[in-house]
Amino acid sequence: MSRENTRFLRACRGLSTDATPVWFMRQAGRYMEEYRALRKKHSILELAKTPALACEVTLQPVNRLPVDAAILFADILLPVDTLGLKLRFNPGPSISNPVRNERDIARLSDGTAAAGLGYVYDAVRLIRRELGGKAPLIGFAGAPYTIASYMVEGGPSDHYKVVKAMMSDRPDLWDKLMRKVRRVTAEYLKRQVEAGAQAVQLFDSWIGALTPEQYRRHVKPHSQWVLSEVAKTGVPTITFGTGTNGFLEEFAAAGGDVVGVDWRIDLDAARKRLRNKPVQGNLDPVLLFSSTKVLRAAVKDILARNGKRTGHIFNLGHGILPGTPVEHVDYVASCVHELSAR
Amino acid sequence: MSRENTRFLRACRGLSTDATPVWFMRQAGRYMEEYRALRKKHSILELAKTPALACEVTLQPVNRLPVDAAILFADILLPVDTLGLKLRFNPGPSISNPVRNERDIARLSDGTAAAGLGYVYDAVRLIRRELGGKAPLIGFAGAPYTIASYMVEGGPSDHYKVVKAMMSDRPDLWDKLMRKVRRVTAEYLKRQVEAGAQAVQLFDSWIGALTPEQYRRHVKPHSQWVLSEVAKTGVPTITFGTGTNGFLEEFAAAGGDVVGVDWRIDLDAARKRLRNKPVQGNLDPVLLFSSTKVLRAAVKDILARNGKRTGHIFNLGHGILPGTPVEHVDYVASCVHELSAR
Repeated sequence: MSRENTRFLRACRGLSTDATPVWFMRQAGRYMEEYRALRKKHSILELAKTPALACEVTLQPVNRLPVDAAILFADILLPVDTLGLKLRFNPGPSISNPVRNERDIARLSDGTAAAGLGYVYDAVRLIRRELGGKAPLIGFAGAPYTIASYMVEGGPSDHYKVVKAMMSDRPDLWDKLMRKVRRVTAEYLKRQVEAGAQAVQLFDSWIGALTPEQYRRHVKPHSQWVLSEVAKTGVPTITFGTGTNGFLEEFAAAGGDVVGVDWRIDLDAARKRLRNKPVQGNLDPVLLFSSTKVLRAAVKDILARNGKRTGHIFNLGHGILPGTPVEHVDYVASCVHELSAR
Repeated sequence: MSRENTRFLRACRGLSTDATPVWFMRQAGRYMEEYRALRKKHSILELAKTPALACEVTLQPVNRLPVDAAILFADILLPVDTLGLKLRFNPGPSISNPVRNERDIARLSDGTAAAGLGYVYDAVRLIRRELGGKAPLIGFAGAPYTIASYMVEGGPSDHYKVVKAMMSDRPDLWDKLMRKVRRVTAEYLKRQVEAGAQAVQLFDSWIGALTPEQYRRHVKPHSQWVLSEVAKTGVPTITFGTGTNGFLEEFAAAGGDVVGVDWRIDLDAARKRLRNKPVQGNLDPVLLFSSTKVLRAAVKDILARNGKRTGHIFNLGHGILPGTPVEHVDYVASCVHELSAR
């Protein structure tokens, strides 16, 4: 590895690398003892809103594991807070004043929300300084659909009844809401890039609840707008969703230099459907609870399915689960490098 | 409509029909006032274990809605009970003695479990008599993976950690368990057919948690065995799963005359991937909470995506949700007939 680790950024561009780059969604989190120790003293919002702490958490996995990228520690819902909604964690996120009508939407402070997240940009600057060239820093935001879902439902939802009702029965309202959310999202990501983020990932974790038609009509144009705005900064963009296999081609057509796929598809099938666009994934996060023997075989299988193609970033199909043995995460990262070394 | 409604059974065989047949997964259930009234007096297990009550519940939607098939009312977990596990509903299903090791598996009474479900076969006989020719009766069972998951996890699970660990780390144990479960499942379905079920559906509701490789190695052979055993009875078989879009072709290759798809794929894309094998689906169950205007457009879209092809059974992409307005279910069924009339 050269002094500056460029594997990840090169792979985002589809360029050749000495080994397949690897990082893990939610690599900074509860499965790590160092993180749990900090969480005993601070709430999630305290960690996210204090640049020195956000920096410390971001660096924990980079110091402990042979990962090829760092990802900013922040909560996906921070923009919801500055948009004017009352966000709490007890322990899951809940919004006591969800968005349900025209008036609720009119009240959202989309003009100032991104500027209100200065502590995030401060964290990005600090992390870049601390990282040196050890690993590039990925910024991120929730995609408009996932953020708007939280805003409308007021928290996680089993069936997204309220948000789908707004989408179907009041498409005019939904459109207004999405335009506000997308504006904040794009500005939030651009400011992260200005502060030093070297790539950004747009997380659409809840998109898999939609029909292709709902995605196409009510979501895609807004994700596309964000991705094209952020592309102007010149840094690579990653678009990630779970449950996208029914409309993967359209999901990819919304933009993003790299498409993140979940574990529900073979990587070779994904690469074929995506016409060899760079891809990120796709180990089943639950497999990290299995033996190293099982893990080695699973890593081997994913790498074999990618074959000799460039443009593969190894990751999970979703975030690391609480309780995951950190040694297994370490093992997988090492395995990826060992088995893919060219 | 002729005196005997044959739309559904003809469509299962890919034959032409005067209109597209329609039924709804969980069409007998909590969204219906008549059902809620019965549930005030009886537990789910009482309803399922008393043929007269199971018959009454099965007929409720057939009497209320213009559906083209009845589906047996029974709980998916009944065989778990006769296999020797302690099943309770409070209100969700839970098993106090889940299967975790060799001894637990050895103890399962797979030789007698299907015979122990006599009340189901009695219900089938009674329902057939009561239905006359009004609508054909569909029998059903949980697919081996979904049933075994409940048995190992002890109830619904977020991530299927225990079951995936057994699959990956003790494939020998998993295989033993699946062989016992598949034997009971096949015999259970065959006995339903002997009692009068005119088609059967295998529900693999949890299959979408798997990677294609987990499905292919640890699940597919067992589903395939059940479907081929039941095919010997001569009645059409429907194989249904949600979250199968990453490996739909392989899911279909396991068997079934009809493949049920969820709402996460366009019906035309599904038919293409399934090479025009008969298909069942795929309205988003959440849309039933929207206006009739929205519903009409959604039905029209699905029918248009099917085009002039035979072999389409209209259904939801998953079961009817509690709280769904019964008038909307009624409206959709009528719409399907009206808009597809040839």
